[in-house]
Amino acid sequence: MALQRDSDIIETPIDSVSVYDGSFLKVRRDTVRLPNGHQGTREYIVHPGAVVVIALFDDDYVVMVRQYRYPVQRVIVEFPAGKLDPGETPLACAQRELLEETGYTAGRWTAAGEMHLAVGYSDEIIHIYFATELTAGESSPDEDEFLNVEVMAVERVIEACRDGGITDAKSLSCALWLQNVRDGKWLV
Amino acid sequence: MALQRDSDIIETPIDSVSVYDGSFLKVRRDTVRLPNGHQGTREYIVHPGAVVVIALFDDDYVVMVRQYRYPVQRVIVEFPAGKLDPGETPLACAQRELLEETGYTAGRWTAAGEMHLAVGYSDEIIHIYFATELTAGESSPDEDEFLNVEVMAVERVIEACRDGGITDAKSLSCALWLQNVRDGKWLV
Repeated sequence: MALQRDSDIIETPIDSVSVYDGSFLKVRRDTVRLPNGHQGTREYIVHPGAVVVIALFDDDYVVMVRQYRYPVQRVIVEFPAGKLDPGETPLACAQRELLEETGYTAGRWTAAGEMHLAVGYSDEIIHIYFATELTAGESSPDEDEFLNVEVMAVERVIEACRDGGITDAKSLSCALWLQNVRDGKWLV
Repeated sequence: MALQRDSDIIETPIDSVSVYDGSFLKVRRDTVRLPNGHQGTREYIVHPGAVVVIALFDDDYVVMVRQYRYPVQRVIVEFPAGKLDPGETPLACAQRELLEETGYTAGRWTAAGEMHLAVGYSDEIIHIYFATELTAGESSPDEDEFLNVEVMAVERVIEACRDGGITDAKSLSCALWLQNVRDGKWLV
């Protein structure tokens, strides 16, 4: 079907119901009007939003975390990240998550871009921050959160994105930012 | 809590139940043994896996799609992508999805990396392919899928990743691959 304008592909909500209200995941199922006039169903996760932090030492080293991610049954190397608490601003969340997960505080925070993590089935948006002028301190992960902090050379992070050492999509997206900012191509 | 080895952060399953079996989303809730010996709960989407295709014309132009993504209520610019059918190989899926969504067939297919899309709540893995030696033809999207094909300059795609025109995490991850392969830094 040949379409040419964005207005020709928009879906509009008709009805929306909560179909799963878990301790962590909230799932809704909406009935929608499709562009061809038919009705369709869209199921998706309702997410509070999140942040991810690129915490840099002098451009050459970056703070990563290693965390067992149960859904994929493996330890994942990723940039520090976490969900917004109710009423929390993205910047406050970024500062809290970096401190809780890694113990670092930063003298300088800069907002970079935003990403939609899983557009097919989640409304999650992740705000990307750069954190510099780092000071080490004590971490305090959530009670059910277990992770190891690893300071990695930026070059090694980029290599790991190529070699399969880093497979987490939000972290690959951060690597795009990190590479371009470090090369002076993108400004933050 | 200071941990140092991956073996100290692994969570092991105790029990698993299906909590939502929708027409599109399948959600499970597992009881797990946490590293501290306590029990915890993990909720996650069970996904069949997917592919995403970087379809290039002579390195300078790439085939993108514009698709209304209901969960985020906006038109998203993304690389062509789709879910594996039962029993389908990732390469066959990539060839099928590129053809269905854009009408293009490719003379050369190369597997690049893999990404885990949403490690916090989905087991989805996305296989990244480069497709070159493209031939145009007729697209045939799924009945409930509406999208516009847009051939974009690679430079414009990279700019859009910086400027907010592209926010889809799988596409930002593909842009990292595209940029590094095009610059001759990564080989595929």
